[in-house]
Amino acid sequence: MSVGQEIYALAEQLFPICRSITGDGVRRTLDILSEHVNLERHEVPTGTQVFDWTVPKEWNIRSARIRGPDGQTVVDFVDSNLHVVNYSTPFKGTLTLEELKPHIHTLPDQPQRIPYRTCYYAPTWGFCMAHDHLTRLPDGLYRVDIDTELKDGSLTYGEYLHRGQTDREFLLSAHICHPSLANDNCSGLALLALLARSLKAKHTRNSYHFLFAPGTIGSIAWLSRNEDRTHLIDHGLVLSCVGDAASPAYKRSRRGDAFIDRAMAHVLGREAGAKLMDFSPYGYDERQYCSPGFNLPVGMFQRSVHGTFPEYHTSADNLDFISPEHLEDSFRILTDVIDIVEENWTPLNLFPKGEPQLGKRGLYAAVGGQKSSGVTSMALLWVLNLADGQHSLLSMAERSNLPFKELAAAAILLSEYGLLTAAL
Amino acid sequence: MSVGQEIYALAEQLFPICRSITGDGVRRTLDILSEHVNLERHEVPTGTQVFDWTVPKEWNIRSARIRGPDGQTVVDFVDSNLHVVNYSTPFKGTLTLEELKPHIHTLPDQPQRIPYRTCYYAPTWGFCMAHDHLTRLPDGLYRVDIDTELKDGSLTYGEYLHRGQTDREFLLSAHICHPSLANDNCSGLALLALLARSLKAKHTRNSYHFLFAPGTIGSIAWLSRNEDRTHLIDHGLVLSCVGDAASPAYKRSRRGDAFIDRAMAHVLGREAGAKLMDFSPYGYDERQYCSPGFNLPVGMFQRSVHGTFPEYHTSADNLDFISPEHLEDSFRILTDVIDIVEENWTPLNLFPKGEPQLGKRGLYAAVGGQKSSGVTSMALLWVLNLADGQHSLLSMAERSNLPFKELAAAAILLSEYGLLTAAL
Amino acid sequence: MSVGQEIYALAEQLFPICRSITGDGVRRTLDILSEHVNLERHEVPTGTQVFDWTVPKEWNIRSARIRGPDGQTVVDFVDSNLHVVNYSTPFKGTLTLEELKPHIHTLPDQPQRIPYRTCYYAPTWGFCMAHDHLTRLPDGLYRVDIDTELKDGSLTYGEYLHRGQTDREFLLSAHICHPSLANDNCSGLALLALLARSLKAKHTRNSYHFLFAPGTIGSIAWLSRNEDRTHLIDHGLVLSCVGDAASPAYKRSRRGDAFIDRAMAHVLGREAGAKLMDFSPYGYDERQYCSPGFNLPVGMFQRSVHGTFPEYHTSADNLDFISPEHLEDSFRILTDVIDIVEENWTPLNLFPKGEPQLGKRGLYAAVGGQKSSGVTSMALLWVLNLADGQHSLLSMAERSNLPFKELAAAAILLSEYGLLTAAL
Repeated sequence: MSVGQEIYALAEQLFPICRSITGDGVRRTLDILSEHVNLERHEVPTGTQVFDWTVPKEWNIRSARIRGPDGQTVVDFVDSNLHVVNYSTPFKGTLTLEELKPHIHTLPDQPQRIPYRTCYYAPTWGFCMAHDHLTRLPDGLYRVDIDTELKDGSLTYGEYLHRGQTDREFLLSAHICHPSLANDNCSGLALLALLARSLKAKHTRNSYHFLFAPGTIGSIAWLSRNEDRTHLIDHGLVLSCVGDAASPAYKRSRRGDAFIDRAMAHVLGREAGAKLMDFSPYGYDERQYCSPGFNLPVGMFQRSVHGTFPEYHTSADNLDFISPEHLEDSFRILTDVIDIVEENWTPLNLFPKGEPQLGKRGLYAAVGGQKSSGVTSMALLWVLNLADGQHSLLSMAERSNLPFKELAAAAILLSEYGLLTAAL
Repeated sequence: MSVGQEIYALAEQLFPICRSITGDGVRRTLDILSEHVNLERHEVPTGTQVFDWTVPKEWNIRSARIRGPDGQTVVDFVDSNLHVVNYSTPFKGTLTLEELKPHIHTLPDQPQRIPYRTCYYAPTWGFCMAHDHLTRLPDGLYRVDIDTELKDGSLTYGEYLHRGQTDREFLLSAHICHPSLANDNCSGLALLALLARSLKAKHTRNSYHFLFAPGTIGSIAWLSRNEDRTHLIDHGLVLSCVGDAASPAYKRSRRGDAFIDRAMAHVLGREAGAKLMDFSPYGYDERQYCSPGFNLPVGMFQRSVHGTFPEYHTSADNLDFISPEHLEDSFRILTDVIDIVEENWTPLNLFPKGEPQLGKRGLYAAVGGQKSSGVTSMALLWVLNLADGQHSLLSMAERSNLPFKELAAAAILLSEYGLLTAAL
Repeated sequence: MSVGQEIYALAEQLFPICRSITGDGVRRTLDILSEHVNLERHEVPTGTQVFDWTVPKEWNIRSARIRGPDGQTVVDFVDSNLHVVNYSTPFKGTLTLEELKPHIHTLPDQPQRIPYRTCYYAPTWGFCMAHDHLTRLPDGLYRVDIDTELKDGSLTYGEYLHRGQTDREFLLSAHICHPSLANDNCSGLALLALLARSLKAKHTRNSYHFLFAPGTIGSIAWLSRNEDRTHLIDHGLVLSCVGDAASPAYKRSRRGDAFIDRAMAHVLGREAGAKLMDFSPYGYDERQYCSPGFNLPVGMFQRSVHGTFPEYHTSADNLDFISPEHLEDSFRILTDVIDIVEENWTPLNLFPKGEPQLGKRGLYAAVGGQKSSGVTSMALLWVLNLADGQHSLLSMAERSNLPFKELAAAAILLSEYGLLTAAL
């Protein structure tokens, strides 16, 4: 099974669960992710102050349905967890169609799709359904039955730290609060879990910090509890919508010129149709990581840009909308970026006056014989020329417009031949 | 009457007067402007040294005409003050057509228009007429009669200082030396007078310094007499040609990145077809304000770019060439820029770690309920995100590409809710 | 005879000689160049260590031919010195066509052209011929007879220093190692020789250092012997391929913003179709001058970009491929750049407050009367405006987009009128 197929299979497992910003859906999701990565789980009690926010009551749902004038079920949570407005209060009652309608959310522009709606911080309830369905409902009395619970409990998140040689961290974060939406964000959760798994066997220079937390309140809670160690974060990415067919897209961190911004620009610069976007304070949890009190070097990676594609936050964001192929492509982009973070260094040319004679060392031959190493003469010449102790390999890639991989291979080859050393 | 109509009406009053760099035309013009703004008038005597220049003799004209071989009047100053070369010496005499022609200026390319010509610093005389008219003149003797006077007198200019809370100044300058040319510069004179009037009732942070002076020698005289206070000038604009139908245009100050350059770029960035041009040392009095010994942050605002439109310096620059609509548009652009100068400040987010919870403060509701205030969620989020004490509201507008007005309103709202304070 | 014709005639003289990185071909070439410029000749003995390289054995060739099965000559060095792989070892022997073929180099894509090949550092031999020719060769035995010599000798280069008022240098370098290739690099050698000659009679501010050395090993040898004086080099250009019909092209120095980069950008900015390219560590001897241990401000000037035109390194790079017209154009571009290097200075406006009154000094008249001097009002105004002691004339040219020549003439005129002095 390819890694893309594995990610897809994991996303499939996560898809049916009714997640929210708190509750058992998050816990069941973390259970499944834990089959791949050894998550540390945290429970933050209801009422805990996290910066300007307070952890809300925990929400769980057992069932919810509306029965029509004829006693037949009109909508049922069992069919789709999008049918119930997330965080709906418990309710039992009989209403006329007119009274019911303010509680029904539809998408008149996409009349066959169910929208995704939440009411986290407002004590109300509601249902979501296809607009075509709503317009067919006859007048009469409707029986509403929402069996949810709001109680003192906790907000749950999971994290995993892959320890490298240094404690400098790469933060990888995905929100875990959306119910049955495949791209947003079963795709991100599944990809990160399998990325974490793939690192387990590796000796890395950096540490990799994976965070699976509810959107906004979850990342704020995490920041609040980890404030004293955010200084360890050298790089970061928020992931969402990484499984659809659109070209990859990257939104820069608030800093705009952080190493992660440059590395992502380099990688996406070689992907057809890739988009690079400036930071804006709207989106996912990069909003919190990039708030002015933290200003962390955290960007956001996605394919279709949230809020701009018709399937966004509707029942059309289902398992057909994502594919193993595109999940694998996103996975590869992340590993390319991790390679840059891992393999970047600043070489110093030990023969800086004129070009060293590559021919007498068999390095032109070495090149000829090592096509598969991806080392070309141009890569050797660029590395030698820029190895003045002021250019990292990423800087060289930016200036030469050659792939980082190729320059990194050239630098290793030149080091093996005694032509380079590491700059201090 | 709209402000555009008021400006137009004032320009209409100014149009017939025969202005020059000295003389009673300037004084009559200042008299009319004084009906709207309490001008301080200055007389700089002939012979006064102003930097490298000397104030010339004062020029006044009573009449000027040419009579043809048949005794009929061929051209008469009474018909258009453009007919006489400005600063012509007195002359009476009879000349053959051949002798007369070197004194006649026409526009062969625009054969029905009278050009505008001057001879400030050369003791000569001349007439301007339509080229078609000239070619129809029969041979014979012409009687020339120019009743002008060049005497020791003075150069006149007027200024008005609207005092704000601080003595930091915004200089607004228009040249007062052109005779019957509507766009260049009755439009600028009239617009500035009514802008000055509109500020009278306002409590402003900055002081606004209005200057109505003859081109070149007038602004040089003013600089020479105000050299010790030019350090007060934080912003400045020269105005000319602000009434025609072209899109607005701004020429940057010599500095290129002064606050006024950024503010004008922001405002014109939202105007269809607007032009931004780099500084060049040719144009109006910005040449003097931006001379290297001063290098003041003074740009130039106009619509049609001087020297590039066919009506420029011809009898076609008349009252039909300008309109209340475009004068009003120019007026609005100036008030937009003044708003930026007045309302810019640097906020500091008091809840900088993560986003503050806007919902619990009713700020999302506030937004919903205050659509007319122009405050959007994006404006709130941008202001909070960039309120690190390093970004003024103008910087925020530049980075977010949101209108300054919207961010300013958001910043006030956030301040009222205790989320922002002013950075030191 | 125009200078273009003179350069062409000199290139014609150089064309037939069989040059290599060592040997008598280089010496004969320097003999011919010495008729125009008083070259200092250097011989660097075989075995000399020059940085990471060792000067190789000296190579000379007397004759080389292949005779076919019928005893007829198939290829002969006498017909074209490209026929023999440069640095071929001596060889006599009889081979089957099959055995011979690995020693034959052709261009299947350009089947009528002979390629240019070298084997400087590999002890082998070979021939080059038209692909069509090779395919017509019948089976049978071929008699190969290569009468070359590899002996302890020396590497030869020539240099000429035109001494100016200061010892600050402009390095002009061309490779002397290619045999009968007209554009690459008889054109560069001939142009530099006649440029050197043209400077002889001139009193220049800078010194001009001309170098005619074999590619790579030659410039490395020169750098190795002149290491302690490379700090004198303020500007430098490598020249090659300067005679063909393509538009001029400039490759920036490794620094990218050196004075020579700016001056070339200014000059080429006024040439239709001219190309500006960023530095890359592939090309001619700028690779050595711009190696990180030197990082000299040396760019590369050419017309067709080496390696990209079909005639490159083939028998089609012959005397028909270059022309007096284009050689003259290249010569003019170099003299334009030298003019900038010579005539650049930083003026200070002595009347910096407002514009000085040009009219009273007759400078507007001067302008009118001196059209041939190329001084325009705009040039006068720009120089006065930017003469704040922070802008050199080249900076002014960059900002104003006026030709350097025009600004330089304006600055001289203004100095003569006492309006400018030199900034310290």
